[in-house]
Amino acid sequence: MQQTAIGVDVGGTGVRAMAVSRDGKPLTGFMETRLIRASRDEVVRAVIDLVAQAAEQANAAAVAVGVGIPAFLTLPDGVVALSPNLPDLNGWNAGAALQQALNLPVVVENDANAAAYGEAWVGAGKNRDPFVFLGIGTGLGGGIVLNGEVLHGARGLAAELGHLTVYPDGALCGCGAVGCVEAYASTVGLLRLYREAAGAGSSPDNALGLEKLARAGEAAAVSAFAQAGAALGIASAQIANTLNPQCIAIGGAVAAAWELFYPALVERLAAHTTEALRHDLSIVPAELGRTAGAVGAAGLAWRRQVTA
Amino acid sequence: MQQTAIGVDVGGTGVRAMAVSRDGKPLTGFMETRLIRASRDEVVRAVIDLVAQAAEQANAAAVAVGVGIPAFLTLPDGVVALSPNLPDLNGWNAGAALQQALNLPVVVENDANAAAYGEAWVGAGKNRDPFVFLGIGTGLGGGIVLNGEVLHGARGLAAELGHLTVYPDGALCGCGAVGCVEAYASTVGLLRLYREAAGAGSSPDNALGLEKLARAGEAAAVSAFAQAGAALGIASAQIANTLNPQCIAIGGAVAAAWELFYPALVERLAAHTTEALRHDLSIVPAELGRTAGAVGAAGLAWRRQVTA
Repeated sequence: MQQTAIGVDVGGTGVRAMAVSRDGKPLTGFMETRLIRASRDEVVRAVIDLVAQAAEQANAAAVAVGVGIPAFLTLPDGVVALSPNLPDLNGWNAGAALQQALNLPVVVENDANAAAYGEAWVGAGKNRDPFVFLGIGTGLGGGIVLNGEVLHGARGLAAELGHLTVYPDGALCGCGAVGCVEAYASTVGLLRLYREAAGAGSSPDNALGLEKLARAGEAAAVSAFAQAGAALGIASAQIANTLNPQCIAIGGAVAAAWELFYPALVERLAAHTTEALRHDLSIVPAELGRTAGAVGAAGLAWRRQVTA
Repeated sequence: MQQTAIGVDVGGTGVRAMAVSRDGKPLTGFMETRLIRASRDEVVRAVIDLVAQAAEQANAAAVAVGVGIPAFLTLPDGVVALSPNLPDLNGWNAGAALQQALNLPVVVENDANAAAYGEAWVGAGKNRDPFVFLGIGTGLGGGIVLNGEVLHGARGLAAELGHLTVYPDGALCGCGAVGCVEAYASTVGLLRLYREAAGAGSSPDNALGLEKLARAGEAAAVSAFAQAGAALGIASAQIANTLNPQCIAIGGAVAAAWELFYPALVERLAAHTTEALRHDLSIVPAELGRTAGAVGAAGLAWRRQVTA
């Protein structure tokens, strides 16, 4: 019987999973259990069910499980230090609990780091190192892959790229700090920028609605995306000056509005970097879409838990 | 006969060298050949002389030589892509030329990267990883040591930390970009900030003169250091959010004015990071002073050229 790793992506609205072969090929579709703000017990039950279903659908034996979690995970213990969207997970040793429940080797990783690893493994970052992933949805999550491994820093808090300061006296971010790129380049940030430009009146309540307005030429919506792009350009310059990456890939729901923010991004990137740094840097859309986290979690399970 | 590596630090005003044991102990004093804007030939002759002198003074056999160069070095070839202060070096394959001239294994490295490695090896960054070095003199150079090795990125241009954007619509930097931390936290930046605050009249022409004025309570000088500290705090926050380092050490001539810029640094760092990131991060003065580059270059020669 062939072997598989199961990649799991735990999110604020559900738990998703996929069986992935050792060379990064999906062996199943993308399965989902809807769960709003799941508790620890609900997460454990959903993971047990999805792992069993994925292995069965793949007709393969699950040999390791990778789990991406929307949380600050402190290393080396892997405890959830803080999960703003899944507060019942705070203080939980997710890896140990899931390993016991599944009776399989389990790797846990921050969800954006897992997505970064997925893109580096079989997506936009393949054979590009250092590789940086920016996932723009409600917020802005980041991950860095260096020498083929996720960059963790002193205790797992590296790559908090949504909180790079782009305007030091700028807008307040949800994290409590001032001027973070996430306060501009995220659904929350875009909607704020739109309301500021449009003044009173109705406004869209999500990024897709704002994207439609911008594509129809509505000035306030166009301006919001341009400002988000400028913030992303400044943050990309900071990332470039720090890491000299070969590739920055941008994913998440907002990435679909690429032409609306990319020109401003490029302009700001050029204002804050030397030509030499930009020479080898490509800034591209991510390739794996919603599956990046699960694919990356599976890849990390193969890498860290299964010896050749 | 005992063995030694020779660390060499090539600068805009001279070439310095020191013999260093395998465990990082200096075996000689810090030797210097004064050379203003040296040519390639002058650098080669000075290095040959200093290596011979250092080995003799150490009463040891030189087994490898490390050379720090104030330049963008592109990897993997090690060619000097651009040396603003030593333009005759542009386009030079310094490593190959010196290796041939010395008939010894030679490692070349960007000078700030070499200083970072020195501090990480036997200075302020010992047993602290990731470790970041900021050297503040005429400009602001940076180096990052991760997993015990200098971080190079795609082709050796990582850790251009002086060019982190702290004020995206701020002062023009010598590099041509806008709002770099070096445009504030450097001798050039401090003197500009002083002149802006003091208006017309005489002004000091170096950091030491400005430091004396600030210590005497002169408001424009005090303000210049506080503004430099704020810029350093924003840059440190960006570094922390990217790398989650254990330690950022600040060296160079301007670091002597520590109390004049450190409070503003801490204040800005707190405004732009979460408590969790600051928890394990110490920001400290560098320890090796002017010898950091030579010590680090010797350490890299031991590490990369001498097998155990």
